[in-house]
Amino acid sequence: MKDRNMNKILPHLKSPKELHEMQVPQLTQLAEEIRETLCGLLSIRPAHFASNLGVVELTLALHSVYDFSYDRLIWDTGHQIYPQKLITGRYDKFHTIRTRGGLMGYPNPAESEYDLFVTGHAGCSVSTMVGLASGDELMGQGDRQSVAVIGDGAFPSGIVFEALNNAAEMKTNMLVVLNDNEMSICPRVGGLGSYLDRLRSNPVYTGLKTEVVNILNKVPVFGDPAERFLAQIKEGVKAGLHGGMLFEEFGFRYFGPIDGHNINVLRKYLKMVKQLDGNVLLHVITNKGHGFKPAAEDPVYFHTPPTFERQGDKAIPNQKGGSKAYTNHARDAIFDQMKHNDKVTVITAAMCQGNKLEPVREAFPDRFFDVGICESHAVAFAAGQCKTGMRPIVDIYSTFLQRSYDQIFQEVCLQNLPVVFMMDRAGLTAPDGPTHHGTFDVGYMRIFPNMVVMAPGDANDVGAMLDFALQHDTPSCMRYPKTNAAEISRELKPVELGKSEILSWGTDGNILCYGTPLIECLKAQEILAEEGIDVGVINARFAKPLDSTTILKALDESNFVITVEEGMLMGGFGSAVCELANEHGVDASHVKRLGIPDVFVEFGERGELLDELRLQAVGIVETCREQFEGVNTKVTRQKI
Amino acid sequence: MKDRNMNKILPHLKSPKELHEMQVPQLTQLAEEIRETLCGLLSIRPAHFASNLGVVELTLALHSVYDFSYDRLIWDTGHQIYPQKLITGRYDKFHTIRTRGGLMGYPNPAESEYDLFVTGHAGCSVSTMVGLASGDELMGQGDRQSVAVIGDGAFPSGIVFEALNNAAEMKTNMLVVLNDNEMSICPRVGGLGSYLDRLRSNPVYTGLKTEVVNILNKVPVFGDPAERFLAQIKEGVKAGLHGGMLFEEFGFRYFGPIDGHNINVLRKYLKMVKQLDGNVLLHVITNKGHGFKPAAEDPVYFHTPPTFERQGDKAIPNQKGGSKAYTNHARDAIFDQMKHNDKVTVITAAMCQGNKLEPVREAFPDRFFDVGICESHAVAFAAGQCKTGMRPIVDIYSTFLQRSYDQIFQEVCLQNLPVVFMMDRAGLTAPDGPTHHGTFDVGYMRIFPNMVVMAPGDANDVGAMLDFALQHDTPSCMRYPKTNAAEISRELKPVELGKSEILSWGTDGNILCYGTPLIECLKAQEILAEEGIDVGVINARFAKPLDSTTILKALDESNFVITVEEGMLMGGFGSAVCELANEHGVDASHVKRLGIPDVFVEFGERGELLDELRLQAVGIVETCREQFEGVNTKVTRQKI
Repeated sequence: MKDRNMNKILPHLKSPKELHEMQVPQLTQLAEEIRETLCGLLSIRPAHFASNLGVVELTLALHSVYDFSYDRLIWDTGHQIYPQKLITGRYDKFHTIRTRGGLMGYPNPAESEYDLFVTGHAGCSVSTMVGLASGDELMGQGDRQSVAVIGDGAFPSGIVFEALNNAAEMKTNMLVVLNDNEMSICPRVGGLGSYLDRLRSNPVYTGLKTEVVNILNKVPVFGDPAERFLAQIKEGVKAGLHGGMLFEEFGFRYFGPIDGHNINVLRKYLKMVKQLDGNVLLHVITNKGHGFKPAAEDPVYFHTPPTFERQGDKAIPNQKGGSKAYTNHARDAIFDQMKHNDKVTVITAAMCQGNKLEPVREAFPDRFFDVGICESHAVAFAAGQCKTGMRPIVDIYSTFLQRSYDQIFQEVCLQNLPVVFMMDRAGLTAPDGPTHHGTFDVGYMRIFPNMVVMAPGDANDVGAMLDFALQHDTPSCMRYPKTNAAEISRELKPVELGKSEILSWGTDGNILCYGTPLIECLKAQEILAEEGIDVGVINARFAKPLDSTTILKALDESNFVITVEEGMLMGGFGSAVCELANEHGVDASHVKRLGIPDVFVEFGERGELLDELRLQAVGIVETCREQFEGVNTKVTRQKI
Repeated sequence: MKDRNMNKILPHLKSPKELHEMQVPQLTQLAEEIRETLCGLLSIRPAHFASNLGVVELTLALHSVYDFSYDRLIWDTGHQIYPQKLITGRYDKFHTIRTRGGLMGYPNPAESEYDLFVTGHAGCSVSTMVGLASGDELMGQGDRQSVAVIGDGAFPSGIVFEALNNAAEMKTNMLVVLNDNEMSICPRVGGLGSYLDRLRSNPVYTGLKTEVVNILNKVPVFGDPAERFLAQIKEGVKAGLHGGMLFEEFGFRYFGPIDGHNINVLRKYLKMVKQLDGNVLLHVITNKGHGFKPAAEDPVYFHTPPTFERQGDKAIPNQKGGSKAYTNHARDAIFDQMKHNDKVTVITAAMCQGNKLEPVREAFPDRFFDVGICESHAVAFAAGQCKTGMRPIVDIYSTFLQRSYDQIFQEVCLQNLPVVFMMDRAGLTAPDGPTHHGTFDVGYMRIFPNMVVMAPGDANDVGAMLDFALQHDTPSCMRYPKTNAAEISRELKPVELGKSEILSWGTDGNILCYGTPLIECLKAQEILAEEGIDVGVINARFAKPLDSTTILKALDESNFVITVEEGMLMGGFGSAVCELANEHGVDASHVKRLGIPDVFVEFGERGELLDELRLQAVGIVETCREQFEGVNTKVTRQKI
């Protein structure tokens, strides 16, 4: 092992400051070593891949020109942080990435001073950069440089424009690197993308440009109307010369586009803009998957591919079994609805692949809408569609839907428009960690009037629930996690507003399960039955409105009641059960709520995380046993 | 009265369709009558004023060219809807505006088919318009025209850019009217504002333009590099000719700027763009307060002025007494902190006036940040500042803070940065209604780990609480309503994390009050004491972390406990109390929760709304009495 590393640079790199002394050949070798390491990782574990291959040279160039132990660097969205991790003292631990206790798959200040913010949601880098620059200035450290690297996929995010608009007023020297790879996770959409395409097609004729600008500078700017008109032409010509007018309007000097895989060019430009006064936008062209042919050819698949074995220039995927995921069931249900009802549309925010909607896009191109990473717009747009009589489905991850919180409030709930929200990745997304876990939606959704809040108990509920939602005349949402779907064989009860499904009724206790932990509750029930503890299982289906009849009956007739949910305890389903009891003046002290306590859950395997939270069969069994014993102890005590 | 109306047009107008037949002199007279009516209203009631005076001609021109019973019109933010209300059959009811049961101060579909969405939060009009156009197209009614009118204050809102970006891909004919009055509520800020200023200074030289464009059209677009360069110049010149390049990049044809108070010009342009294929942005210049000198001269004051008496061209404000509002106390506390600690900054989102921060802006211009109506950016910006060691205070209304929900999650709570949120207008904002009531913040804030959730019980708590927040090392928020502040004389207990303030301890029952209803609880206590019911009052101060010791003691020792809060019951403070009881296996069935049920509260006087919700002394007394009697009935029953 040591011998193999002898001639390598990466394993011996102590600090990115060493890059300042390196020449292009060494940096090129380092880039190659980083790519090798990334490919090696992907043979053992799914991880963000194509995006990281795309920023290898950019990372090296940035760290070789700036000192980011003092200067500020924010990687937008953060999934392209791997090369930075490798050169900032984390090479040895790199194999642990995305595993419990190992390195996070996103920037993490707890790991390194070079990671400033835990990120994962797109678009906020420019805002935080403006904040950092402003704070440094006020702290008397205005010499700290601030840089944000943002992809063209994240760029149309509304907050980016809010930040550019505000940056125009700051007297600071900020650098936005626009990492243009013509991709979001899925192919890029929207007007801004077309704009970047036009910029990219503009060849740079430096010599000619200089000459023309010199002539133009002789045109007077003030004077009579005719002269002023000439001045306008002059400004117009200047705009035509350098492009990037859009950014210049926001007070950013535009440079580019330049080749983001040419370390020499990158360094040259970075050194230049570092010296400039005022804000700069540097337009860098990269290829997602650069340097590994299969990834460069299919960056969508290689965004976060399953593990593969590398054979030269080929990636042979490792076989993977397992049942159908909830996402597939959701997609199939959407497909089915759209097939039978031409009023149904589906709206996604750059998650066509994540939501597995490609077949829907193929079959119903007119009713499929990918608006890009613009969740706020997605929801208000859906509200507009809904107003005309269409039945839009908004298919967005639970955590990203937080970006449209106010539109859910004003454009949907307040108007009482029957928009349907399908909240994918609701629950623990496992290796992605706290930025991607969808754990808050029950609490944040149910507080809005008019909203119906649901969760399917298994695969069979998904289609039935969507069918219900599209018949229903108020807004509704349903949540399901990123995992394979159980199918619980039973005579499926139709989904009715505020009605749970009683799978069995226990004489000792009853479990009120909200959503997909249902299968674990049933396993627990079996284990407990063997111990002589008779526990019933209820598929709650609705967190709002609650099935008050069934829940109050369970509270009344059971020695103990357990609520189970894969979400925050605070404000969640169990909390709603306590509220219901309280409204009816019923004692709920024999209710035990299982869910996520008031902490951000870290990353790790889904199983181990759920185990720790007691959300798998073993934990549910233990909880029931404790409650059963607690009740019996109480009874015994009372008898004494 | 009838005589006075005889020669008027407005009182007799049955439908805006009548405008199609009117000539400019009639429309001008109508404009004058609308202005008179607006001034008349303002003598009896505070209402949005300057913005409505500014869009009188625009409203008339739009309705005289389009038929918005079929075509679609969205007024962004919606506070400039009064002229539309006056010409769409609501003239007779106009005097009831902003009073309970009367007309809403914002668009309201329940009142008229001409109002499509209840709005109030800024920036969503373009998104809903794109949604409407898309839905109409799919419904086979692509001939319906879609128009959004949006002010330059709302325009930098991120969602507007998300919508423009998406609109570029739609094959529809949409019209965005940019109503440029150089104002947000406060004077406009940001790069986009400067851009509009530049556009406005461009005179239009139509004749010259045509000639030059003709010449330029002879330049070949394709060919060798030199020719391509000429083509670039050509495009540049074209851009320089008409301005509005920023919008053209998003696929909107730009027209303007034009005089928004010249009905003839407005109609000419509207008729023209109505015929055009493709999306258009029409840049209209208006003056807030136009036609009433005092308002035109001070549009900030006249945004929502107190009532005044009109004396010719003068507005004599009616005297107004009353104690200091919570907003003033909050501002004074901020001022005080900034005076003594140069690390403290304050960030507002176009609400410098609403938050009464003008003196702070004057005294500490370097640490005062108005980012415009860009709440998402405001919060991420604050997080960046905080990271450098500064102590930013984010001063945003409770309901508008929903716009930054995801940034509160990712940029603040997940990083555990001690940003302080001061949530003004938390509770019922009265005449503004459901878009402005701040009723969800307790529920939406407390579910995020690390966040400390507070509410002052009276004026004295405000400064103490802010002082605590700025010493504390995690994110925190505090809420207070738009009302005059009570000062409860007592020996003020210092604000300590998770500690309530026991004002008195009751032998019959105890009231746990979260926030400013405290004074009403004390009034109730007095009335009850006279009836021989001994009720204690506790100033909860914290919704998170809860004062578990005191609350559990109250639950244990009291025959009944009342929780009181001016916010949603679902997920609120009372719900947190139920959760606490549940965690400790304590019976909470003797807790009665007072707050807002699961409905959107309408507009009306604050007092009448609170009365109905039992959040004033009388309602609290009644509730206590019922609980007291209920307990005694139970005891009696048990005895039998």
